[in-house]
Order: sequence, then C-alpha cells, then structure tokens
Amino acid sequence: MTVVRSTLPDEASRVAGKALQDTLVDLLGLSLIGKQAHWNVVGPRFRSVHLQLDEVVSTARTQADTVAERAATLGVPPDGRPETVAKVFALPVPEEGLLRDADVVRLMADALGAAIVRLRERVDATEKADPVTQDLLISVTAELEKQRWMFEAESTPAGA
Amino acid sequence: MTVVRSTLPDEASRVAGKALQDTLVDLLGLSLIGKQAHWNVVGPRFRSVHLQLDEVVSTARTQADTVAERAATLGVPPDGRPETVAKVFALPVPEEGLLRDADVVRLMADALGAAIVRLRERVDATEKADPVTQDLLISVTAELEKQRWMFEAESTPAGA
Amino acid sequence: MTVVRSTLPDEASRVAGKALQDTLVDLLGLSLIGKQAHWNVVGPRFRSVHLQLDEVVSTARTQADTVAERAATLGVPPDGRPETVAKVFALPVPEEGLLRDADVVRLMADALGAAIVRLRERVDATEKADPVTQDLLISVTAELEKQRWMFEAESTPAGA
Amino acid sequence: MTVVRSTLPDEASRVAGKALQDTLVDLLGLSLIGKQAHWNVVGPRFRSVHLQLDEVVSTARTQADTVAERAATLGVPPDGRPETVAKVFALPVPEEGLLRDADVVRLMADALGAAIVRLRERVDATEKADPVTQDLLISVTAELEKQRWMFEAESTPAGA
Amino acid sequence: MTVVRSTLPDEASRVAGKALQDTLVDLLGLSLIGKQAHWNVVGPRFRSVHLQLDEVVSTARTQADTVAERAATLGVPPDGRPETVAKVFALPVPEEGLLRDADVVRLMADALGAAIVRLRERVDATEKADPVTQDLLISVTAELEKQRWMFEAESTPAGA
Amino acid sequence: MTVVRSTLPDEASRVAGKALQDTLVDLLGLSLIGKQAHWNVVGPRFRSVHLQLDEVVSTARTQADTVAERAATLGVPPDGRPETVAKVFALPVPEEGLLRDADVVRLMADALGAAIVRLRERVDATEKADPVTQDLLISVTAELEKQRWMFEAESTPAGA
Amino acid sequence: MTVVRSTLPDEASRVAGKALQDTLVDLLGLSLIGKQAHWNVVGPRFRSVHLQLDEVVSTARTQADTVAERAATLGVPPDGRPETVAKVFALPVPEEGLLRDADVVRLMADALGAAIVRLRERVDATEKADPVTQDLLISVTAELEKQRWMFEAESTPAGA
Amino acid sequence: MTVVRSTLPDEASRVAGKALQDTLVDLLGLSLIGKQAHWNVVGPRFRSVHLQLDEVVSTARTQADTVAERAATLGVPPDGRPETVAKVFALPVPEEGLLRDADVVRLMADALGAAIVRLRERVDATEKADPVTQDLLISVTAELEKQRWMFEAESTPAGA
Amino acid sequence: MTVVRSTLPDEASRVAGKALQDTLVDLLGLSLIGKQAHWNVVGPRFRSVHLQLDEVVSTARTQADTVAERAATLGVPPDGRPETVAKVFALPVPEEGLLRDADVVRLMADALGAAIVRLRERVDATEKADPVTQDLLISVTAELEKQRWMFEAESTPAGA
Amino acid sequence: MTVVRSTLPDEASRVAGKALQDTLVDLLGLSLIGKQAHWNVVGPRFRSVHLQLDEVVSTARTQADTVAERAATLGVPPDGRPETVAKVFALPVPEEGLLRDADVVRLMADALGAAIVRLRERVDATEKADPVTQDLLISVTAELEKQRWMFEAESTPAGA
Amino acid sequence: MTVVRSTLPDEASRVAGKALQDTLVDLLGLSLIGKQAHWNVVGPRFRSVHLQLDEVVSTARTQADTVAERAATLGVPPDGRPETVAKVFALPVPEEGLLRDADVVRLMADALGAAIVRLRERVDATEKADPVTQDLLISVTAELEKQRWMFEAESTPAGA
Amino acid sequence: MTVVRSTLPDEASRVAGKALQDTLVDLLGLSLIGKQAHWNVVGPRFRSVHLQLDEVVSTARTQADTVAERAATLGVPPDGRPETVAKVFALPVPEEGLLRDADVVRLMADALGAAIVRLRERVDATEKADPVTQDLLISVTAELEKQRWMFEAESTPAGA
Repeated sequence: MTVVRSTLPDEASRVAGKALQDTLVDLLGLSLIGKQAHWNVVGPRFRSVHLQLDEVVSTARTQADTVAERAATLGVPPDGRPETVAKVFALPVPEEGLLRDADVVRLMADALGAAIVRLRERVDATEKADPVTQDLLISVTAELEKQRWMFEAESTPAGA
Repeated sequence: MTVVRSTLPDEASRVAGKALQDTLVDLLGLSLIGKQAHWNVVGPRFRSVHLQLDEVVSTARTQADTVAERAATLGVPPDGRPETVAKVFALPVPEEGLLRDADVVRLMADALGAAIVRLRERVDATEKADPVTQDLLISVTAELEKQRWMFEAESTPAGA
Repeated sequence: MTVVRSTLPDEASRVAGKALQDTLVDLLGLSLIGKQAHWNVVGPRFRSVHLQLDEVVSTARTQADTVAERAATLGVPPDGRPETVAKVFALPVPEEGLLRDADVVRLMADALGAAIVRLRERVDATEKADPVTQDLLISVTAELEKQRWMFEAESTPAGA
Repeated sequence: MTVVRSTLPDEASRVAGKALQDTLVDLLGLSLIGKQAHWNVVGPRFRSVHLQLDEVVSTARTQADTVAERAATLGVPPDGRPETVAKVFALPVPEEGLLRDADVVRLMADALGAAIVRLRERVDATEKADPVTQDLLISVTAELEKQRWMFEAESTPAGA
Repeated sequence: MTVVRSTLPDEASRVAGKALQDTLVDLLGLSLIGKQAHWNVVGPRFRSVHLQLDEVVSTARTQADTVAERAATLGVPPDGRPETVAKVFALPVPEEGLLRDADVVRLMADALGAAIVRLRERVDATEKADPVTQDLLISVTAELEKQRWMFEAESTPAGA
Repeated sequence: MTVVRSTLPDEASRVAGKALQDTLVDLLGLSLIGKQAHWNVVGPRFRSVHLQLDEVVSTARTQADTVAERAATLGVPPDGRPETVAKVFALPVPEEGLLRDADVVRLMADALGAAIVRLRERVDATEKADPVTQDLLISVTAELEKQRWMFEAESTPAGA
Repeated sequence: MTVVRSTLPDEASRVAGKALQDTLVDLLGLSLIGKQAHWNVVGPRFRSVHLQLDEVVSTARTQADTVAERAATLGVPPDGRPETVAKVFALPVPEEGLLRDADVVRLMADALGAAIVRLRERVDATEKADPVTQDLLISVTAELEKQRWMFEAESTPAGA
Repeated sequence: MTVVRSTLPDEASRVAGKALQDTLVDLLGLSLIGKQAHWNVVGPRFRSVHLQLDEVVSTARTQADTVAERAATLGVPPDGRPETVAKVFALPVPEEGLLRDADVVRLMADALGAAIVRLRERVDATEKADPVTQDLLISVTAELEKQRWMFEAESTPAGA
Repeated sequence: MTVVRSTLPDEASRVAGKALQDTLVDLLGLSLIGKQAHWNVVGPRFRSVHLQLDEVVSTARTQADTVAERAATLGVPPDGRPETVAKVFALPVPEEGLLRDADVVRLMADALGAAIVRLRERVDATEKADPVTQDLLISVTAELEKQRWMFEAESTPAGA
Repeated sequence: MTVVRSTLPDEASRVAGKALQDTLVDLLGLSLIGKQAHWNVVGPRFRSVHLQLDEVVSTARTQADTVAERAATLGVPPDGRPETVAKVFALPVPEEGLLRDADVVRLMADALGAAIVRLRERVDATEKADPVTQDLLISVTAELEKQRWMFEAESTPAGA
Repeated sequence: MTVVRSTLPDEASRVAGKALQDTLVDLLGLSLIGKQAHWNVVGPRFRSVHLQLDEVVSTARTQADTVAERAATLGVPPDGRPETVAKVFALPVPEEGLLRDADVVRLMADALGAAIVRLRERVDATEKADPVTQDLLISVTAELEKQRWMFEAESTPAGA
Repeated sequence: MTVVRSTLPDEASRVAGKALQDTLVDLLGLSLIGKQAHWNVVGPRFRSVHLQLDEVVSTARTQADTVAERAATLGVPPDGRPETVAKVFALPVPEEGLLRDADVVRLMADALGAAIVRLRERVDATEKADPVTQDLLISVTAELEKQRWMFEAESTPAGA
C-alpha cells in the first residue's frame, strides 16, 4: 500500500529511492560512529578531535534527515531503524573501548573516504533518473569530502 | 587498558556504568525510531506528529550525549555503535514502510513507557553507588515521562 | 488615601478605571482557564490545542499587565488578587479534570466571545472619558477577536 | 474517567499528585499577589521593587507550569482555576489599594517564607513515592528560597 | 530598448528567460492561493493547516524573488504584475469563501503537483541553454516537491 | 454557508468587511507592483530604489495579512486570489519591461497617493460600524503615508 | 516653496502640523532634560533614577522621530533646531549642577505632567483634522502618562 | 556645593571639564541638526542622505553621553539643557523648512569640519591635564573625521 | 610530496584543480579591487556605491575560501599569495587615487563580466572531471552574475 | 548580628553552611589557578589548552556565585575575600612563570580530582541537613567530574 | 627560562611588565571584594547595590584578563595565584559577614579611588617604556573612574 | 586632483598618510598569507592552526579597512590593489604547496614579529603629525602583538 504518490516515473523513483536509502544508512552509521569516537577518544589531541567529531555528527544528522525526506517525497519510505542500520552499514567501525586520537583521525578519514566512493557511484546512477536527487547527492559528497580532507590533513606527521 | 581513572570505587563505577550504558542504548534507539516515524508518518495529523517526533529525537540525542559522557567520566567507555544498538535495543520498533498517525502516537507512548520502567529501576540501582549518576537518570526520566504524557494524551479519543 | 494623582478629571478617572478593572479580571481569568485547559486537554488534537492555548495565555497575561498599569496610571489601584478574580470572573470555566479537545476549542471560543461582548461595551463607555483608555481597549478587543476567530474556525466540522 | 495512565503505582501517584496540586496553588497565588504588588507599590524604592516583583512572577509562572505538567504526567489532572486558587491559597495576601514599598518587601518575604515551609514538608513526603517529583520540588524550593533571601536582605535597615 | 546586457547568447537567454518567467507566474500564483487558503480554512485541523500554508507562501515568495532576479540578470525583464499573473496562472485555484481543511490539503497537493510537472519540463529545457538557470530550477523543484509530500502525507486517512 | 460567526451585527460586519476587502486588494496589488519595480528598475539610483521598494513590499504584505485576518475574524471571507486582484485593483501599474529610476519613484508616489485617498474614505466609513476595524485602517494609512512621503521627497529635483 | 504635497486639505494639514510641531519641541526638550538629570543626579537612589531617566530619554527620542516624520508626511516641515527648542520649550527645566535624587523624581513627574496636559488638548484639536495624527498623539500620551505614573509612585514617602 | 570629588587636581579638572563641556554642546547640537536634516531633506538622494544622517545622530548621541559622564566623573557637572545648547552652539545650522540633498551634504561636511577644528584644539589642551580625557577626545575626533570624509566624498561631482 | 590524497583520479583532479586555482585568483583579485574602490570612490552616489562594494567583497571572500578549500580537498594545494595574485590576475583594475562613482560602477560591471566569461568556460571544463566542482563553480557564477546585473542596471542613464 | 533568618533549623544551617563555604573557596581558587594557567601555558597545544581553561574558569565562577548565594540564603554569610581564599585553598597550585602544556593538563586533572574527593564528602554530609544544598553540590560535582575527565583523557599518550 | 620573546627592549619590558602585574593584582582583588559585597550586602538598597557590584566584578574580570595577556605578550609571565593576590593586594577590604548597603557603597568608592591613584602613576611610568601598555592602562583608568563616580554619586545624602 | 580635503596641515597629512599606506600593505599581505596557510597547513595540529589563522585573517581584514578609511579621511587615497600589495609587501611569505603545522606557527610568529617592528616605528613617526592616526596604529600594534604571542607560545616544545 503506497499512499504517497511519486512525482517521478516508477523506474526513476526506484533508482533514486535506492540511492537515497543506501546513503541514509551510511549517514546514520557515520553519525553513530562519530559519536562513539567523540566519547571514547583519548590522547593529547582529545579536545580538538572531540570537537571536530561533533561537527561530523551534526553534518551527518542534518544530511540524513534531508536524504530520508527526499526518499519519502519520491514515495519511497526510508528505513533508518536500528536493525537496518546495523545490518547494512559497511564502513569501518571503531573497536570497543577507548580510542587513541591518531587512530580516530585515521579511522574517520577512512570511513569518510569509503562513503565518498559509494556516493560518487550514486551521483552517476541518478543523473538520468532524477536531477533533483543527483543535486542533493552532489552536495552531500561535497560536504563529506571537505570533512575527509580535514582528517587527512590531520593524519600527516607534524612539522619540525 | 583503562586510561581514564574513575573518581568512584570499582564496584560503584561498575553499577553506575552499567545503568548508563543500558540507558544510552535506549536513548539512541529512541532517537532512531523517532526519526523513522518522523519520515514515514501519514494521515491527517501528519504535520503535528512530524514536528512532535523531532522534539523527542532532539531530547533523546541530547540525553544520550550526556549519559555517554557521564559513563566516560566514570572510566566506563560507552558503546553506541550501530551493531551494539541493534543487538541490545529492546523497546518497540515501527514496522517498515508508511505508518498511520494514530499508530505512531500509540507506538511512541508504548516505547517511552517501556523505557521509563527500565529507567526507574536504574534510578533505584544507582542510589547508593553514585548520587550524581542517579540525579542524571532522574532528570532523564522526568523528561521522557513528559514526552510520554503528551503521546498518551494524544491517543485518547477526540471530544464531541 | 490616593497618593498617585490622576491626569484626568475625577469622573473620567472613575469611568475609565472601572472599565480597566473589569477588563483586568476577565484577562486574568482567561489566563488561568487557558492554562487549566493547556494542562488537561486530551484527544487527537492535543498538541495543536495545547500550543494554541499557550498563545492565548501569553496574550492575556501581557494585556492584563498593560491594562492594570493603565489603571494605576489613572490613580485607580487595580485589583488582581486571587479572591477578587474568583469572585468577579463571570466567563465560562472548564470542568475539573481531563478535557476533550473539541470541548476545549468550543469553551475557549465561547469564553472569548463573552469577553468581547463586554469589551465592546467598555470601548463605548470610555470614548468620552478617556480616548487613551479607549484606544487600549480597542487593541485588546482586536487581539481577543483574532484568538476567538481561530477557535471558531477550528470548531467547524472537517472537510471530506 | 482517567484516560492518561500513570507510570507510578496508585498510592505513589496519589501522594505525588497531592504534593504537586498543593504546590501549584501556592505558585499561582504567588504569581497573582506578585503582580498585585507590582502594580500597586509606591514609595522611593518603587522602581527597584517593581522590577524585582516581575522576577518573582516570572519564576512562579514557569514553575507552576512545570509542576502542573508533572501532575498531568502522573495521571493526576491539576486544578488551577480561579475559584480553586482563591479557595485553597493560604499565604499572606496584600491589602486592597496602594502599598508602601517597605510593606511589600516584608509581605513578599513572609509569603515566600510560608510557601517554603510547606514545600519542605512535600519534599519529605515525596521522597519514597517518587524521586522525580521530589527532585522537582527541591528545585522549586531552591528558587523560592533565593527569592526570599533577597526580600529578607532588603528588609533590614540601611547602613549609616 | 534592452539596457541590461545578458551574459548569455541570445537564444540561450530567450530559452532560460521563458522558463524563468513561467516559473515566476506559478510561484506568485502559489503565494496568492496559499494566503487565500491560510485566511479561509476552517475545520478541526485549522491551526495546523493555517501554519503550514504560511510556510508554502514564504517559500514561494522567496523563490519568486530569486527567479525574477535571475531573469533580470539575463537581460529578460520579468513580469509579475497582477494582470499578468491572473491571465497566465494555470494551476488549481480555491473557490471563493470558507474552505474545509481536508479540501485545502487536497488542493495544495494538486496545485503543487501541477507546478512540479511544469518545472521538470523546464529543468530539461534549460540544461543546454544555461546550467546556472537549470540549477536554480532544480532547487525550486526540490523545495516544492517537499512541500507537496507533506500535503500528500496529510491527505491519507487517519490511523485506527 | 457562513460558519464563522461575527462578533458584530450584520450591517456593521458588512460595512467593515467591504472596507477590509477593498483594502486587501489594494495592498496585494501594491506588493505585486512593488516587486515588479524592484526587479525592473534601472538607472543611477538603482540600488537605493531597489532596496526602498522591498520595504514597501514587506509593509504591504504584512498589512494585507492583518487586514485579511480581520475580515475573517468578522465572518467575512477575504478574497485575494489572482483573478480577483487583477480585476479589482485600480491603482497605477508600471509598464512592461525595464523602468527608469525616476519614473519608478513617481509611479510609487502616485500609487500610494491613490491608495491613501481610498483608505481615508474607509476610515470614515467604518467609524460607526467598527472602531476596531477603523483603528486598523488608520494604522495602515499612517504607514502608507509615510512610505508615500519618502517617494515624494525623492521625486523633487536635486540640490545645487 | 512646499515640494512635498500633503494628503490632507490645507486647513487640516495646518491644524495637525501645528499639534505635531508643538509636540516635537516638548519631546526634544524632555530628551535633553532627561539626559541632564541622568548625568547630574546624586543621592542614594542614584543608580535607579539614572537608569529610569534613560528609558524616558529613549522613549522621547523615538517619539520625537515619529512625530517629526508625521509632520513631514503632511507637508509641514518640522523644526527641531537648537534655537527653536530653546525658545519654545516651556516645561520645567532642572537647575544647573548636581541634582538630588528626590528632586529629580519630582521634577520629571512635573515636567511629564505638564506635557500631558498639552498633549490632551492636541488630541482633541486633531480629532476632526486628521484621525491618523490623533491616533499618534494618543499613543504618545499613553506612553508619557505611564512614565509619569512611575515618577509619581516614586515620589511618595517610603513604607515603615 | 560639589559633592562628587574629582580624582584629578583642581586645575586639571577645570581644564578637562571645560574641554568636555564644550564638546558636549557641539555633539548635542550636531545630533539636533542631524535630525533636522534627516526630516527635511528632499531630492533624488533623499533615502541615502536620510539614512546617513541617522548614523551621524546615533554617533553624536552616544559620544555626547560618554563625554558628559566623563565630565561628571571628574566632578564637573555637564550642562546639556536646551537653553545652554542654543546659546553656546556655534556650528552651521540648516535653514528652516525643506532642504535640498546636495545642500545637506555640504552643510554636514562643513559642520563636522568646524567641530573637528575645535576638537583638535581640545586634544592639545588636555594632553597634560588628563590623558584619559585626551584619549576620549581623540576617539571622538576619529569618528567625526570619518563621518566628515563621507560627506566630503559625496559632495564631489559625479563621474561621467 | 602530496600528502592529502585526492578522492578523484589524477587527470580529473588536475582539471578540477586548475579550474579552482584560476577561479581563486579571480575572486581574491575581485576582493582587492572591490575594497580599493570602496575606499576611493567619490561623487554623489558615494554612500550607495561604497556599501554595494562591500557586498561584492564579502561575497568574493567567502567564495574564495570555499573554492580554495575545494582545491585542497582534491589534493591540489591552492595558491593565493600576494605575488601569485598579482601575476595571474587579468581582470580590469582601477587607476590609482580617487575614483568617480559612475566610473566605479562601470569598472565593476566590466570586471565581473570578464570573470563570468572565464567561469562559464570552467563550468564546461569540469562537467566530466568532477560534478561536485562544477556545481560549486555554477553557484559562484550565479552569484557574480547577480552582482554584475546590479552594476549594469546602475550604469544606465537616470529616468526623466 | 545575623539579620537574614534561615529557613532551616540552626544545626542544619551550620552543616550546610560549612559545606558551602568550603566549596566556595575551592571554586574561587580553581577559577584563579585556571586563569593563571590560561595566561602562562606554552607548548604546541597552547591554543587548545588556553581555550579549555577558560571553560573551567567560567564554570567555576558561575558555580561559586550559586554556592555563595545559597549560603547567604541559609543565613550563613559566605567569605570569598582574597586572604580567606589564600589561607584556606588546599588544592594543587601551578608554579610561578611559564607552564608547559602537558604539565598544565596534569595539574588541572589533579586539582579537579582533589576538589571532587572533598565535594563527595560534602554531598554525604548534607543529605540529612538540607536536600536542597545536597542537590546543588551534586550538580557541582557532576560538572567538575566532566571537566576532570577531559583533562584525564588529554593526559594519556597520543595514538600511533 | 623565558621562552616567549618580548617585542620590546629588556628595560621597557620590565617597566611595563611591573605596571601590568601590579594592576592585575588590583583588578583580581577588586573582583573578589566586589563579589564578597555582592553576596553579603543588606539594607533597603540591597537589589540596586547587588546588581551594581556585578558590573564592577564583570569589568574587573575582563580587564584583568586583558592586562594579564598583555604582560604575557611582553614576555613577562603574570601572577594571579591566590597567595600572590592575598599577599600583594593593598586596597580596602570589607569586614567578614553581612554588610550594610551604605557601607558597601562607601567602601567601593574608596577601593576604586585608591586603585585609580595607583593606576595614574603607572600611566605616567609606562609612557616612555611602551605606549601600547600605556594606552591599555588609560582605558582601565577611564572605566574604573566611571565606576567610582557612580558609587560617589550614590554616597551623597538623598534629596528632600 | 585631490577632491577630499584633509583636516590636517599638508606635511602632517603626508606623514600620517605614508604610515597608514605602509600599514595597509602589511595588513592586506598578512590576510593573504594567513589564508594561504589556513588552506595548506597539514599535520596533527591542523584543526587548531586552521582555526587560529582565520582569526588572524579576520583581524587583519578589519584593521586594513580601518587603516585605509583613515587614510582616505586625511585626503590620502589608499592603494591596496593586487600589484601594489605584491610589490611592496616585505614580510615572510610561505612556500608554495602544503605546509607542516609547526612551520606555519613559526612563520606566522615571524611575519607578525616583523610587522610589529615596522608598526612601532610608525607609532613614533606619527606622534606629532596626528595623534588620531597614532592612536589607531597603537591599537593595531596591540592586536598584532597579542596574535604573535599566541604563535610564539605555541612554537615552544611540549611539556613532559
């Protein structure tokens, strides 16, 4: 029973809806692991990394909301329930317990990097199906790439 | 390797830490199902319920952060990773797909009600172990009970 | 012993002062029954009516303050003590206990309607005595009429 | 017909509900007499006392709302209607008409002092019944005691 | 006499300018019928729909301004005068007089749906002519589709 | 079928309602031609006039909303649909296309001047029917007269 | 050479213009003596009176601006130059040098009282000439009467 | 009777006090003539000059307050009463009635220029007497010179 | 030594990086010449042009930052050092010394026009290489075209 | 001579008053050493630690004020004079002169840790005497423990 | 071991550093005694003095921070530890326990007066050594003199 | 052709103008190299240094504007065009490409240090010519010295 009619043809809705659902899981997962690291990071860079992670979480939450509402708009009910996120989320996840600062920086750069590879495929996949969805995914990519840059820049060795 | 020393004796830390970890999972789970309903609710009360759910999510997120940082403060690393949340979360979860407004209101009242029963046990359990943690759990309970009241009030039949 | 001298002749002060004192009781009473309904309303429209009532209460409190200070300005000490309000207040009051949403909407429309009838008489009565007081009562009327319209519009049956 | 189910056992609800209802009347009464004095105070300290009273009123209104919603949360419909307030309110009330500044300061210190004695009994009474309600009453007490201190300090004679 | 030179070739200006002018009329028309419904809606959902319509109006006004200034930027003077809007506007318009809430929700969903169909054609039409204009029309589409979703979700029957 | 009952006698409602409906059309028309000029003005004073017009538009929109809600409050459904505005609006309208700055200043002074003449008649007409409506029309007049003054002052020749 | 044409007949403009010009001088004068007292007051109530005077000055300046722009709107150029203010201002003025607090309170009550007597005459005088101007003068009166009340209340003897 | 003791030797107080009193009159006078021009300016640049003048007035008022309180701080009661300002103010004053825009710009540049010449003398005069006062006069000069520059720049002929 | 790895293939990074670096120089240059004109403009339109230029500068600075961080994100270190800007910047630059207002308006329209021509080429060049970069350049173009329109509109002759 | 009467029995006042006075000295001392470190810290983590210390200082100052006013409320005059603080303060204090960043982090963790041990004893001591004071001390403890956690987390070695 | 190099010659650094260190102690001491009086003042002027003292404290804290960072900037580590403040602070200090309002006003006027005498000597002493430090000390003096004026004005007898 | 007349004698204008022009180039250059480092810094301290540099840039831009407008005020047209900045700027400039964090910190400390040496000479040079300009240069020096201190403190080795 689909009660919200899409403004797109069925096939286009399906393609765009799948790209959005997959992105939703990545973003919700990122927001959870971002918080996990926010709470468990230790080391001399604690404060800096602790604050930086909250910006990632804030970004991921806002984007998850936009992405999920876009799916709903296309008549494709988004799924962000705990079990779905746990089952589908495929990016790197931190170990249990305390996390050293340099490891967190590396992990976030990797997790964001992996999310971006997947997003770029979805940007291509939605170009024909729905330019509105594509435009949204481009802006998600832009933001995550910026976040990744900052963790990358931070994971290089210090100057003399 | 526990690098953050607790300010409490070991047993007290363990008791308080467990109460906080269990509360953390309930709150993260509530924030995820709250958003799930926020995106998928339909029916004449869509707008009202849609907005109300965002207040629950906002409350649950803020409280989850406070609860997790309290655990970290006691030297007990909190665990809010996707798999942990999925495995441990035991409150009612919405079905996949669109959700009728009255069903959402009922579900949230039940989920909050179940969370409150568990919280009240933890309030008792932490009284001796750590009054600071108990005080925090009391304030979480107060807020969730208020949210539950509003969904309860909303799930009674309309006036003539 | 009247220590604050009025800027009006005695009779004009008396007329304007009486109109203001009567309006004060109506507004304080409205703020109390608005809160009573805010706390006790139940039914599917709970959230919408709950929020709407707080706007009525906020308006009534602000206006009560302005009206009372106008009386004081004219050398007529306003009386808003609990017993005075209880004795003089003559608008419809909700029953004890929970209130169904549709009943609340009807009650507020009626209470505001009754207050407006009385206000319009006072607008006439103060025209000669004090145009400043009349202008204030006109603006109170305008605001209460707007609030009443919204409850009236809400108490009509739903569309198909 | 009680449609909002409590999260507490019946007896605990009854005890907490009674403490909250009695506190509600005290706070609504304080907000009304605070405004009465705000409008009618005269004397060299007019401006200072006039402003200070608005802080008491603002505090009392906010607390009354929290207290009443806590009662509703426990399934005990709060009663703040004009007649209930007038009948039950038992704290000192100002005389009709203008009030000298020193008398207002004394009256408010006494009214707040009387309210605090009653609140401290309710803090004891709710300890077992509901720690959430107790915690709320403790914070109401803390705030009223601070307000009372300021009126007390103000009612001592001036320096040389 | 065209005094503002375009930054595009003539044909591209013409194509983009026409898409913008047509969109301008749709948006101005939507802002007028949104306000019409905002003022005349009645029924139990009055408050919720009344507020929701103001968000549509606010969105439509902001977008109309952006769209018209984009046309001006391309050297194509936009036309949003009353007579032009009345003559060209082709989306559903509410009847005269009071409007039942469910009818308003349906009407807005239909009007927004019709506007979106036309916008998607313009997104295609401007792709080659001017990617800047296309990007703007994509963002207008995204926003109107979100608004439409909410009215669609609201026009489904209530839950049990 | 009039479902919102007026707080005025029928004849008074009719008189006030007509004055409000006529004013609504003038204000909506002014907001549309103000925007038209805002987008199409050219000349050395472009920026100054462009900004000034947005203040007129903002004022006219806010007043239109207040005026229409006043009509609704009196049980007279306002009509601001595109066709109604186009048919009834009788103030000067700018030509199609670009507009020289001095011409815009002159046009707005004239359009506002014409609106004011009509408003002053309605102020007289509503004095007996409804002082609340009259008071609202007086404040609309005051604001439009101030706006007109500024365009008048601007259309005089420059100093040496 | 009058280049800003009035929207009123000549005689009405003259009457309203004179009322506004006279009010302008009173308000500018009040703002200057308010500041004079703000700087020179001494005594135990220094801080309270010092702050209160700034509210009078702020009110008087805002009203002076509104009143002068109203005159300009009617084609009557307002005159607020130093010499004009000095020559025409007829309200009580403080002595040179330091001023005792109780004397300042008395002086301000008297100056505001004298201004109000004159304003009430102008409210009568403009009723026929221009209801817009009258409405403005009524609101100036309301505000000055409130300020006067506070100084009056403050100039009564202290309580026991 | 000087009740506020200065923190400076008598002669230094006298020198600084005189410089401050003279500056006070200049600033109060500038604020009055700035407003006079704000209300009476006409011509194509009306809006721009009208807004610019309010910035001069706002600056002059803020500085006048600081300067007068500095005098009071030094035990020298400042005098800003209407008659004092009128008698002592010696900068150019606008004619009665409407003022052409270019003339206003010229007048303000000249008035500010004259004020600056006098200020620079006071900066020299207070260097030894009181570096705190000198520092304040330097900052007044800096601000007035900036304002003057803008009027100067504006009074040059337009580009081709 | 490139330590920040790109998320794009090498060739795509190179193309996008070059487009971004060239745009960076244009934007930094525009911000410098915008300020130069902001400080040196003279003529009757001084204030209007002075303020308008600050909006260009603010826009150019914000965009320069976004563009440079995008380059860094792609592993292409941006170069905005004084010498680089001076050597590469190829848009029109104002003469030394004072600038007449009409000349500034013309110069800015031309400089922005030249920047836009180059941006449109880069929008084409990056379409395949990186849609995220293209999207960013489209939004830079949109904003600069709007700024250019306003200077163009301002450089047409005044109305009669 | 104790002029502010307590709302508690004498012994309870004495116990609570002592706990508050001791806490006051700890908090004032923490605010002073936090600032000392804020000014004198050097090393690669300068900026991060410099900012973090200001949060400790801000927290300690706010809490000191609340704690001292609570003592005053109980009729026990708080003592926070320089000599009292210096004599009674018993937490670790930084050496004179520049401080290396890692040493500051360690010192603050230790100082906060020592303060917390003392606070937990006072929480126990005040449970019977005054639950309001106990509640305040619990919230002070919660906040200082959170601050201590962050310095602890920061004093662990960096990740690989 | 001085690791932060000064930008001044050694002797100049020494002179400026000493002036800053001495001022730091005065300001920290003033902030502590200001709070002491804020908490312990009693009498009819309690509220007014209580609020005024918080402004002194806020000013003293902000200035202390600026002064200490200026010392650090010159390579002279500031010392604001409890023991240093207690040992060096030489201004009047309030007695233990409650303080009558008039006594507090007198004490603050005296303490500020003593601080100003010392500051004026430091202004002279730093003129040659470092004009940047001198400028900062001048602004500290200006602010403390203003605060002192207000306490002085307040300690004169009341008007009749 | 100098159309803005100076308020200073010619020689004084020349001296002050030269000091301001040289300072302008230093500040514009600092803002450009600050941004260059902001974009290209890498290393574990990336985030901290990245944020700190934006504060330097923001300060330098604001000061550049003030300095340039001061020059214009004195009739000396400031020159901040790209080529001028490149040719005249003589402070250390970062290498092309990525920059290690410690190197950036060192570079900024050195660049600010060099700028300060030059500023102190200009403070001396302008003392006689124009105390207003001198005062401005003193405040620029104070701010840059504070920024330099923070980079200096950051470039010392870490604690144990």
